[in-house]
Amino acid sequence: MAGFVKNSWYVAGWSKDFDETLTPLEITGQRLVVFRTSAGDIRALEDRCPHRLLPLSKGKRIGDTIQCGYHGMTFDSDGRCVRVPGQDNTPKSAYVERFPAYDRNGIVWIWMGDPDLADSSAIFDMPEFNDLNWHAHQGAALHIKANYLNVTENLVDPAHVSFVHPTTLGSAASEDVPVHVSTAGDVISAWRWIRDAAPVGFFQKFGGFSGHVDRWHYYHLHMPSTAVIDFGSIDVAQDCAEDDRDAGVRIFALHFVTPVREDYTIDHWMHLRNTSLGDAEASAQMDAMFKVAFAEDKAILEAVHDAEQHPQRRKPIRIAIDKAPNVYRKRIRDLIAEEATEDLGDPTHSSFINHD
Amino acid sequence: MAGFVKNSWYVAGWSKDFDETLTPLEITGQRLVVFRTSAGDIRALEDRCPHRLLPLSKGKRIGDTIQCGYHGMTFDSDGRCVRVPGQDNTPKSAYVERFPAYDRNGIVWIWMGDPDLADSSAIFDMPEFNDLNWHAHQGAALHIKANYLNVTENLVDPAHVSFVHPTTLGSAASEDVPVHVSTAGDVISAWRWIRDAAPVGFFQKFGGFSGHVDRWHYYHLHMPSTAVIDFGSIDVAQDCAEDDRDAGVRIFALHFVTPVREDYTIDHWMHLRNTSLGDAEASAQMDAMFKVAFAEDKAILEAVHDAEQHPQRRKPIRIAIDKAPNVYRKRIRDLIAEEATEDLGDPTHSSFINHD
Amino acid sequence: MAGFVKNSWYVAGWSKDFDETLTPLEITGQRLVVFRTSAGDIRALEDRCPHRLLPLSKGKRIGDTIQCGYHGMTFDSDGRCVRVPGQDNTPKSAYVERFPAYDRNGIVWIWMGDPDLADSSAIFDMPEFNDLNWHAHQGAALHIKANYLNVTENLVDPAHVSFVHPTTLGSAASEDVPVHVSTAGDVISAWRWIRDAAPVGFFQKFGGFSGHVDRWHYYHLHMPSTAVIDFGSIDVAQDCAEDDRDAGVRIFALHFVTPVREDYTIDHWMHLRNTSLGDAEASAQMDAMFKVAFAEDKAILEAVHDAEQHPQRRKPIRIAIDKAPNVYRKRIRDLIAEEATEDLGDPTHSSFINHD
Repeated sequence: MAGFVKNSWYVAGWSKDFDETLTPLEITGQRLVVFRTSAGDIRALEDRCPHRLLPLSKGKRIGDTIQCGYHGMTFDSDGRCVRVPGQDNTPKSAYVERFPAYDRNGIVWIWMGDPDLADSSAIFDMPEFNDLNWHAHQGAALHIKANYLNVTENLVDPAHVSFVHPTTLGSAASEDVPVHVSTAGDVISAWRWIRDAAPVGFFQKFGGFSGHVDRWHYYHLHMPSTAVIDFGSIDVAQDCAEDDRDAGVRIFALHFVTPVREDYTIDHWMHLRNTSLGDAEASAQMDAMFKVAFAEDKAILEAVHDAEQHPQRRKPIRIAIDKAPNVYRKRIRDLIAEEATEDLGDPTHSSFINHD
Repeated sequence: MAGFVKNSWYVAGWSKDFDETLTPLEITGQRLVVFRTSAGDIRALEDRCPHRLLPLSKGKRIGDTIQCGYHGMTFDSDGRCVRVPGQDNTPKSAYVERFPAYDRNGIVWIWMGDPDLADSSAIFDMPEFNDLNWHAHQGAALHIKANYLNVTENLVDPAHVSFVHPTTLGSAASEDVPVHVSTAGDVISAWRWIRDAAPVGFFQKFGGFSGHVDRWHYYHLHMPSTAVIDFGSIDVAQDCAEDDRDAGVRIFALHFVTPVREDYTIDHWMHLRNTSLGDAEASAQMDAMFKVAFAEDKAILEAVHDAEQHPQRRKPIRIAIDKAPNVYRKRIRDLIAEEATEDLGDPTHSSFINHD
Repeated sequence: MAGFVKNSWYVAGWSKDFDETLTPLEITGQRLVVFRTSAGDIRALEDRCPHRLLPLSKGKRIGDTIQCGYHGMTFDSDGRCVRVPGQDNTPKSAYVERFPAYDRNGIVWIWMGDPDLADSSAIFDMPEFNDLNWHAHQGAALHIKANYLNVTENLVDPAHVSFVHPTTLGSAASEDVPVHVSTAGDVISAWRWIRDAAPVGFFQKFGGFSGHVDRWHYYHLHMPSTAVIDFGSIDVAQDCAEDDRDAGVRIFALHFVTPVREDYTIDHWMHLRNTSLGDAEASAQMDAMFKVAFAEDKAILEAVHDAEQHPQRRKPIRIAIDKAPNVYRKRIRDLIAEEATEDLGDPTHSSFINHD
């Protein structure tokens, strides 16, 4: 059981997924009911009536309040109890936790940790979301029966592409090309260029390249779980400098990894591109190719997760290409350990209590 | 794990459910084989051959004996071994436990505890079963994936009716009407009258009421798990006294809650009524309404059970309407603790032994 | 958890089941990838890349090597790593275990223990495999959700036949006929003759007997898990001596019991016969009868396994007919204890390590 980083913004879904309906979901093992107020604001509350534990998502909206479906205890959109049928007062302990939640760039983000530390300005963003030279397209949500560590690690691991995605994103030409790794603040980056090779499937289709290209893969992992994969191709004749990638066909594949439970993870993926702006057909074709590739990842990741549940006689080994995944895992362990230490000093976040 | 009260009569099913067939079932975690002898007597034996543990319910009847389906070890209807193929003697330990069992009012009851304490005169009964002014009708068996504590608690909880059964048994008119609670011997009662209100769905259909009625709900829980719900309606003009309920349309909904395992419970439900005597069509219509209502309970109870399996950071809170459930839970805890203390003094009921 | 005997040859399947395809299977809790080399030799390797644990069976063949499907680490058919993409050297710990494996008499055998102790001359054999007076026919693989101890015990237990297989292999005539038990080396034998009785279903069909026969059942269990059941019938008039069984219609039913996990076992069964040589139709009819009988065993064994998972208040009892099963269970316990003692002296087989 690895545990989770709690003090972080996680993606609950696309903004278009939520309306006034009481939608249940789970992030880092915490069950939430997510809905919009009549004013359209997104809200995330603990999905558990404090009385008999019925999920509030099984209750009903009465204006902007939620009435529990069992005994009618009612909560406002801040989680405060406003009615306890059968009595006049509302006990101090009759509340549900509220988790800070925001829409940003068409995406709903929820803060799973200490609300006092939630800073909405720290929600992931990048200038291309609001740049007319770029087209943003939301893909889908990939559900994976695997721990999030494996899912996220895979997104800072360019080396797997040659073997897992040979028909779409990779090819044998890249198998032994070295991977560079660097870190800057909360971003871990791993990248490589494959120079002067035939275009891979994706860029044969979307780049219109006939001859050899220079191809790049930059994996930027924003801790703890947002991956920005900058990949693209450019005619080899242009002799593209590393920092001049906008001159080529350039894609940002974004993955928002949401740990649901220790054994279940959702990856909301989308892309930004500097080509085929406004072309819905191109978007659909790219989604189709991404779906092929991500189904390949899912198969691998679920098999690895299953294997990890089996008793191990020998520790797994680490090899040269694991540099970025190793940095990622160490960072996660440090963040979780840090939060555990902080919780020790905070009596309201102490250990779990079993009721009976 | 709450455990079970063992020294109690539990309902195995309707008398009509059992014949000479070897029927497997489970009560309080004990697997039983239930059948009738050729004389029609109901018998309940441990469903486990003492040799290789095959359930006897997978064997076959030979007269009034049961032959195990694996090696032919044979037991009479008292659980005594009468044959061990391949040898002449029958070892002293070659027996299966017999559990006292009786038919009463068309219902099969089994005593799950110390046979020496079984008193068949203590089996639940009420005079209306044998009163020509009353009609008894057996409903069905509701299977619920939840602990029996939640199922039974729900049956001494009038407050949930307004919110869980708004179209059948309750209405908003009762939401804030106070609940009275009293105890007498092994019966916990919770009740309330809703005076001068429109009839609820059930009595619109069966009472033929057009104007306002006085409506009552009396929940009598006979420990540990039989609920008698006395509910009815009467024209408000009659100004009905609390003890004069027979003057109205009166129903006794009976629930016999059988704990199967910690996470599985069966509720055999039926009703007695002082109206539409002998009217099979009315019985069928009432069953249909009860099925709507009890499916609502099942959905709530299974969701609560599921939520209880989740780790809890805060204890559930208790509110004013929980008075009768609180009394019930304390009583159950006391009964289980009492039996545990008795078992300590009885070497034949000591701790569980694992074989291997 | 009984554990497994590791230093033993177990059956992986029929020789015809394996080709160059990477076939995953599990024996004694060890996941294996089994395949043939281009030369046709059978190989069994640990089905776990030492890097990220992906089963190698999800990778691909490149000549006689296997390339992992995640990062392309490649292993030869001895389990040695021959390539780590992204680096020049191959770490010492980059290997997968190889398990000795052989074809014998159309059957694939794998040694699950210390390779230094594997002796291919000890693989089960019997002269009738290569005797022109005998016909060998491979049946099928019976999958049973039960511990292998129960499955194997059942194959040295003639007493169950009368009760579990009354229409095929047994009849009431044998219910009380005593069972003889003897041991010789690693073989436990239990047998009995049923003299002067009507032929059972099987020999009515294949023996062409009309009058009474002498019938024998010899169960030879070759430790730890190969059963040879020598059964047959002969006209009672011939007054057959015990050692003259070839004069009758004689069948060797072979069962190769493969423990997969503690709760899952596969029984590969086949037969040898001294009648209807080369008659495919007779083979098919015998298979059909065996399938009826073995489905009866499976139902019993799965019910027993399920019952064993239930808490037990009393230990199972043992009776006279259990003599051979008791010897078998003691032998298995002794073998497992012996291997555990040996492992203590061998640091490479110490305890399991959990990675994380």
